[in-house]
Amino acid sequence: MSQNSTVNRRFVLASRPKGAPVAENFRLEEAELPTINDGQLLLRTVYLSLDPYMRGRMSDAPSYAAPVAIDEVMTGGAVSRVVESKHPDFKTGDWVVATNGWQDYAAIDGKLARKLEGAALKHPSLALGVLGMPGFTAYMGLLDIGDPKPGETVVVAAATGPVGSLVGQIAKLKGCKVVGIAGGEDKCRYAVEHFGFDECIDHRGEKLEQRLKEACPRGIDVYFENVGGKVFDAVLPLLNTKARVPLCGVVSQYNAQGLPKGEDRLMLLTNTILKKRLRIQGFIIFDDYGHRYPEFAGQMSEWFSADKIKFREHIVEGLEQAPDQLIGLLEGKNFGKLVIQVGDEAQ
Amino acid sequence: MSQNSTVNRRFVLASRPKGAPVAENFRLEEAELPTINDGQLLLRTVYLSLDPYMRGRMSDAPSYAAPVAIDEVMTGGAVSRVVESKHPDFKTGDWVVATNGWQDYAAIDGKLARKLEGAALKHPSLALGVLGMPGFTAYMGLLDIGDPKPGETVVVAAATGPVGSLVGQIAKLKGCKVVGIAGGEDKCRYAVEHFGFDECIDHRGEKLEQRLKEACPRGIDVYFENVGGKVFDAVLPLLNTKARVPLCGVVSQYNAQGLPKGEDRLMLLTNTILKKRLRIQGFIIFDDYGHRYPEFAGQMSEWFSADKIKFREHIVEGLEQAPDQLIGLLEGKNFGKLVIQVGDEAQ
Repeated sequence: MSQNSTVNRRFVLASRPKGAPVAENFRLEEAELPTINDGQLLLRTVYLSLDPYMRGRMSDAPSYAAPVAIDEVMTGGAVSRVVESKHPDFKTGDWVVATNGWQDYAAIDGKLARKLEGAALKHPSLALGVLGMPGFTAYMGLLDIGDPKPGETVVVAAATGPVGSLVGQIAKLKGCKVVGIAGGEDKCRYAVEHFGFDECIDHRGEKLEQRLKEACPRGIDVYFENVGGKVFDAVLPLLNTKARVPLCGVVSQYNAQGLPKGEDRLMLLTNTILKKRLRIQGFIIFDDYGHRYPEFAGQMSEWFSADKIKFREHIVEGLEQAPDQLIGLLEGKNFGKLVIQVGDEAQ
Repeated sequence: MSQNSTVNRRFVLASRPKGAPVAENFRLEEAELPTINDGQLLLRTVYLSLDPYMRGRMSDAPSYAAPVAIDEVMTGGAVSRVVESKHPDFKTGDWVVATNGWQDYAAIDGKLARKLEGAALKHPSLALGVLGMPGFTAYMGLLDIGDPKPGETVVVAAATGPVGSLVGQIAKLKGCKVVGIAGGEDKCRYAVEHFGFDECIDHRGEKLEQRLKEACPRGIDVYFENVGGKVFDAVLPLLNTKARVPLCGVVSQYNAQGLPKGEDRLMLLTNTILKKRLRIQGFIIFDDYGHRYPEFAGQMSEWFSADKIKFREHIVEGLEQAPDQLIGLLEGKNFGKLVIQVGDEAQ
């Protein structure tokens, strides 16, 4: 069944995953459309963003955000059209971004919705990628924590993903050498040819550290960390003195159950931080940098309008696809910013 | 044999330690006094500083500084009197700080020596402690990276050592709650009664994390890391969101041979940095902050003169004691800033 005007389809969290999520962790329900109070908007989801952080919200381990409760609608950012407004700043038909969750309709406080502007109005799904949260994450993490200087070497993984592809492009705009890491030759070729990376290395091949070393003959000055695991292991010995490591995610670890056996390398990391005088800093984009959103929006809009920023979307039609697509995202199966088209753009 | 005017006693590195250093790693030699060239000073060592970083220089593992070569004089900072000067800024009898190494006499470029000033002239050995490198380390690491705010909780280990005791005192001057960690009840009592720490916990007792948690009911906002190991393990779960961890040493690890077996907690640490949005940053004081030495010297001199800063020295007489004392320092046997008195203060 596709989106209609009388039923609210929604995915709730049926159970918590053990390791990788499976389809049974999600349950599709049908409900009545929500009603709205003063100050609220009734939103119809057009595009739903799927992002790695969602795996964290499915667990009840302590994290930076409260978990989704069992039987609660899965969380998620979305681009919507306003169906009904009881907030003076919005009217029916407006395009907005808000945290609708995985459902056709959501009742959202007007103050928690943001109207689309500029380029996003011509291409609304970009408000979930280059012109939205992933773009903001790349921009602030790279520029504020990474602080790249012209001529420095910047490395980022998930190079064709929405965050990685922008980290690389912004670093190029700042005069850096950019080396990407991605899963598979197609993605690597695309990172170089489409996004303008200087090099891109397939992490699925052998001797990752050796190939990364060859690609970074002057070492690594900024490593934008979004995956963790074996990529981090390969990067660590190549970091230069006073390198910076902004850390926005460790997607390779989200499905991990317990810690691996073997040597305990915790002190290896702290010793390396000392010897190389590293700065490693975690950040959660809207919590840490929400007040700088206008700076990002202005600069990115300028670059985008001047055709200095490329993007790639991976749009999948149908809300019912969301669980399988999130499962695939955590395995690196997407190629570009993963978006579920839940409904039509037309009002 | 004690210091005289015709022989230069010196300790060279005889062999590299495996694990903890032993006496046989050092060799006492006698040599002629060095001669000096234009621009140089002939210095007579009065006080030799012993510091944990020296263990690192005894190894040839990659580190932030070149290792001491076999048969080369052990490195070390010292307070000296000028015996002969071929540099226009110095004259015989001046008090200076320089990297003499473990020996009676050293030929040092004038531009690498710093004259004692102010309070240090009245108490020259303090130029190796509160008014010198350890003080500077505490000051910049705490204030620049730690960035403590009034009311926040600051934790530091080696609380009666030259760095830890100053971190705690400066944090108190900044309005923080300060919890120290030290080895033994005597040191803990001293940290509270003499240095004004709010609490101090003996890391030799059981349930370190539990006792630390009770001492820090609002969590930890700044952890000044100078020891690593089990103290770091106890601190990590108690760090607050956006806590800062300046990292100047991991003395508990300097004698370690290889990594411990068990779970590999490297990703536990990176996951924690992400979830808590931590900032962990290593620094080497003169490399990173040399340009800000005057700021430190001015502020510390002001506090010191106003009797706002306490210190404790642990002075041992005789150059021949240096190896045993360094070995003991790495085991936490010193109580206060460890200094070897190599010669008389009088010219």
